Amino acid sequence: MSDLQRILDEITAEMAERSDRGEVASYIPQLGEIDPGKFGIAVTTSDGAVFTAGDAHEAFSIQSISKVFTLTLALGKVGDALWKRVGREPSGNPFNSIVQLEREAGIPRNPFINAGAIVIADVLLAGHQPREAIGEILRFVQYLADDDTIVIDHEVAASEQATGFRNVALANYMKSFGNLHHSPELALGVYFHHCAIAMDCRQLALAGRFLANGGKSGGYSVVSQERARRISALMLTCGHYDGSGDFAFRVGIPGKSGVGGGILGVVPGAASVAVWSPGLNRSGNSQLGSIALERLARAMNWSIFAA
Amino acid sequence: MSDLQRILDEITAEMAERSDRGEVASYIPQLGEIDPGKFGIAVTTSDGAVFTAGDAHEAFSIQSISKVFTLTLALGKVGDALWKRVGREPSGNPFNSIVQLEREAGIPRNPFINAGAIVIADVLLAGHQPREAIGEILRFVQYLADDDTIVIDHEVAASEQATGFRNVALANYMKSFGNLHHSPELALGVYFHHCAIAMDCRQLALAGRFLANGGKSGGYSVVSQERARRISALMLTCGHYDGSGDFAFRVGIPGKSGVGGGILGVVPGAASVAVWSPGLNRSGNSQLGSIALERLARAMNWSIFAA
Amino acid sequence: MSDLQRILDEITAEMAERSDRGEVASYIPQLGEIDPGKFGIAVTTSDGAVFTAGDAHEAFSIQSISKVFTLTLALGKVGDALWKRVGREPSGNPFNSIVQLEREAGIPRNPFINAGAIVIADVLLAGHQPREAIGEILRFVQYLADDDTIVIDHEVAASEQATGFRNVALANYMKSFGNLHHSPELALGVYFHHCAIAMDCRQLALAGRFLANGGKSGGYSVVSQERARRISALMLTCGHYDGSGDFAFRVGIPGKSGVGGGILGVVPGAASVAVWSPGLNRSGNSQLGSIALERLARAMNWSIFAA
Amino acid sequence: MSDLQRILDEITAEMAERSDRGEVASYIPQLGEIDPGKFGIAVTTSDGAVFTAGDAHEAFSIQSISKVFTLTLALGKVGDALWKRVGREPSGNPFNSIVQLEREAGIPRNPFINAGAIVIADVLLAGHQPREAIGEILRFVQYLADDDTIVIDHEVAASEQATGFRNVALANYMKSFGNLHHSPELALGVYFHHCAIAMDCRQLALAGRFLANGGKSGGYSVVSQERARRISALMLTCGHYDGSGDFAFRVGIPGKSGVGGGILGVVPGAASVAVWSPGLNRSGNSQLGSIALERLARAMNWSIFAA
Repeated sequence: MSDLQRILDEITAEMAERSDRGEVASYIPQLGEIDPGKFGIAVTTSDGAVFTAGDAHEAFSIQSISKVFTLTLALGKVGDALWKRVGREPSGNPFNSIVQLEREAGIPRNPFINAGAIVIADVLLAGHQPREAIGEILRFVQYLADDDTIVIDHEVAASEQATGFRNVALANYMKSFGNLHHSPELALGVYFHHCAIAMDCRQLALAGRFLANGGKSGGYSVVSQERARRISALMLTCGHYDGSGDFAFRVGIPGKSGVGGGILGVVPGAASVAVWSPGLNRSGNSQLGSIALERLARAMNWSIFAA
Repeated sequence: MSDLQRILDEITAEMAERSDRGEVASYIPQLGEIDPGKFGIAVTTSDGAVFTAGDAHEAFSIQSISKVFTLTLALGKVGDALWKRVGREPSGNPFNSIVQLEREAGIPRNPFINAGAIVIADVLLAGHQPREAIGEILRFVQYLADDDTIVIDHEVAASEQATGFRNVALANYMKSFGNLHHSPELALGVYFHHCAIAMDCRQLALAGRFLANGGKSGGYSVVSQERARRISALMLTCGHYDGSGDFAFRVGIPGKSGVGGGILGVVPGAASVAVWSPGLNRSGNSQLGSIALERLARAMNWSIFAA
Repeated sequence: MSDLQRILDEITAEMAERSDRGEVASYIPQLGEIDPGKFGIAVTTSDGAVFTAGDAHEAFSIQSISKVFTLTLALGKVGDALWKRVGREPSGNPFNSIVQLEREAGIPRNPFINAGAIVIADVLLAGHQPREAIGEILRFVQYLADDDTIVIDHEVAASEQATGFRNVALANYMKSFGNLHHSPELALGVYFHHCAIAMDCRQLALAGRFLANGGKSGGYSVVSQERARRISALMLTCGHYDGSGDFAFRVGIPGKSGVGGGILGVVPGAASVAVWSPGLNRSGNSQLGSIALERLARAMNWSIFAA
Repeated sequence: MSDLQRILDEITAEMAERSDRGEVASYIPQLGEIDPGKFGIAVTTSDGAVFTAGDAHEAFSIQSISKVFTLTLALGKVGDALWKRVGREPSGNPFNSIVQLEREAGIPRNPFINAGAIVIADVLLAGHQPREAIGEILRFVQYLADDDTIVIDHEVAASEQATGFRNVALANYMKSFGNLHHSPELALGVYFHHCAIAMDCRQLALAGRFLANGGKSGGYSVVSQERARRISALMLTCGHYDGSGDFAFRVGIPGKSGVGGGILGVVPGAASVAVWSPGLNRSGNSQLGSIALERLARAMNWSIFAA
């Protein structure tokens, strides 16, 4: 696997020279100020080794990547009953589209578009105060990454809360169809906070191990093998918003992106990968992160579609 | 692999007893008259063995499954230039929706919805008479299955042509945006005929080998490894219309369904599978075929998401 | 004009016998509890006479009819600059559709759908506290009806505020496009309160005089002749949600309906009419109110399309 | 009424000087070649007088204005049964949108969008060969205008037929829902031919008299008073595609525009007006024609919303 380190270093070097870095998200100041020159990557392999390159130790806002962890928690809480309130199909629309909700009576298409993740936040509120639900999510991520230093960036959360009018619209719209059990404010409070978790690539790759390892993380079983497969399938079909088909076509591994520029990739049986570069492509996914994962998957023959 | 025969037999026996067989497509008489009690399955493994069970030797109308073969041919003809005229994203809509075409100016979302396949038929017409283009497709399928007896059911083709008003609408709509180079009638002629190819499960499983075997079929290279991976990725994200996410979630292998009740499944490096049962579920995919593939993938641990 | 009294009495008698009374709006208890047997009608003619029949002296929630008055006030404040933030076209969609807002980047189609009226509430907030803006609207209606006893039903307003999730969604959605200058909460506060104004048919007919009289009400000029014409034109094309075309076709006079079962009709140069019956038809307009106005317009030859 | 002649002359002079003439439709050569400098206007008053100015005696392609005449004929044939197959609501969409047809299962929103007019052409085919149906429409227009010299421009019809892919799409789409009784080709043949009727402003104003005169034309009753009112109401709410609300707001008279640059306006009890200028505004209606009608309606106080 010293090959892997060399490959990561080569990719990092190539990415440093590219000028097509996409656009950094700027809807809140905390994201807009990030240096677009950043690039980091980390890989944990099934034998427990960790490889890093570039800015792999600098924390960033994981944003929508957190939806993988809240989905996992929600499935643990309510199991397949979840699928009565959230679909499992790609959306065919931008991540914050409200059109589909009108056509499908308040049922979001999948757990990775914003509306779906807000429903899941609502699920995680059951029997909890928002503060407790947020704490549970954070502790779960800390446990997965085996790292208690992971925190929520409260400035980011506050900023999202102050300006996230479209998410407020989505939540209230679903509430009007009865698909939120708590008040939109509470569900959004949980949602904005888990999106504001800050992690570095190394922590994120570690947190994703259970999906690559048949549900196990560091010897412990987090979810069943079947559930790990199914969450991975959802990542492949829905993990990159309206660029999910393209990511599957070009990269060929399950992944989940965030507007902070991170992507978590899962190679079943082989590796968990986290990459970060703040500039986004047209579909809202990390421009260089996507390219780096394409390079890595090809070099390692990691495509799940490979014979 | 005698296990595999036993598993196929068990699945066939289970399917014979199920009463939830879905609805047989009835928009043309030739499809509506098929006995809903039929069920067949065939598997070819990477070592060249073929296993069958049930009605695996009875020909059926492959319909949209043919789109996998026309996509392969079109990529061979024009390469990645194809993607200027067809997208690679799941549609988030029924297979014959015209709404998306209005929003995206005549560019169909992917090659497996009807509009996308009509564009591909138009690509295959370049430099050809319709009869020649149809002949080329048929010969390609015969070559892949190594079986010259495969034919087009001209009664089915004629019936589709006489009643396929919505497909005529789709073709003319795209033509109005300039995304057909030939007349809608010609492109539709090719489309209706390749959808009317009749094959049995055994032939279909053989024809799908190249996708499971890194682009090779019976020792010959049909497409590059990368292209085989990419076509498989499109099958996973878009192969079951608006039920693609659910199929990936439950079954976990690339597949393409047809309204005749067939499904072609691809297990990279392991097997090509064809299943047939005429009753369709709500998304227009074979009801028992989907369940049978779920059983088979679980029994053989064939999910591409498995660690 | 004693004919007119006779006609109103006949219409009232006919309406009393009809059993097809539509469905009373029930999304808040205050509306759902209204007796569906109620029917009232009032007409003020251009010579100042007032005719009433049935329950014309019983107050009801005017709801969306109030949008005529807030539009008039907003045009007085900002003039044609208003049309940069609100369109003038029929919506082709239900009154609370959010789809159109996505397609048209947060600009509502007209001032009479909910989204449009919320923008207008935002306009009326300029330089005001919500309480002041609400007071201004109420005083304007009292002035038009020459009746200081008209009040806001605060229980209705509170109930709308507690359950109006879809309106909250609309407001936040427009805010995300920058088409609200104040917070969604403030604009909604004004909106919910002016919808909760309670009036009887007689008061409402009086309040509508200025539109029938070329902008004048009781000798005073409220708006210019041109503005009165234009507001009337908007009522005709957009005043009955997605039933506006049908109302123009059958009744042929400008009108604005409310979910409380009221309709304000304007006969240019002749009369202002208010009718009330709580049961609604499929488009959300008063079932008997529409029929009564059709009868009245025919009997009086009041259609603006009559030669 | 010598005032009227003076007003027409002044308007014509003003229009001659304007440079904002819109864009001439260019989707077929026959329309694209028209001189954008043309402007003509004609008015017939209820006392039988005819006033003209500018290029009022030059024939142009009436295009969608013909839909007023085919609607009148179809209502004469099948009466209110027509409304089971065509709606009466503004579309809230461009004139050739197919989205609405998907949502409303093949029922076009109104008789003046293309889809609606194709259904009406289908109605007029009942018991007829296409040639006969086309002949019936032409004779009806000749009768209304009292002018046997009016003809169909067969070059225009042939050109529309050769390139009208979107209309072919609309027709086939409705056929797929069962809302055409004849083949799409036949209905489209009738549609393309009646759109290709060529008339000058004078002829068109004469043909529109019956709508302004309570259903009577030259002493004969063409339709009942009620039907004349109702057709006028449809013109007001739906006659200018997605600019209908704006036309009602600014001009205030029922009108129907065509992509050839003509508009037929109806002033109930007063006048029938035809105006022609080939350049179109953003909504596809004659740019100068709309402005000229606004000027005329204001000068003559012809708004149907005037007190």
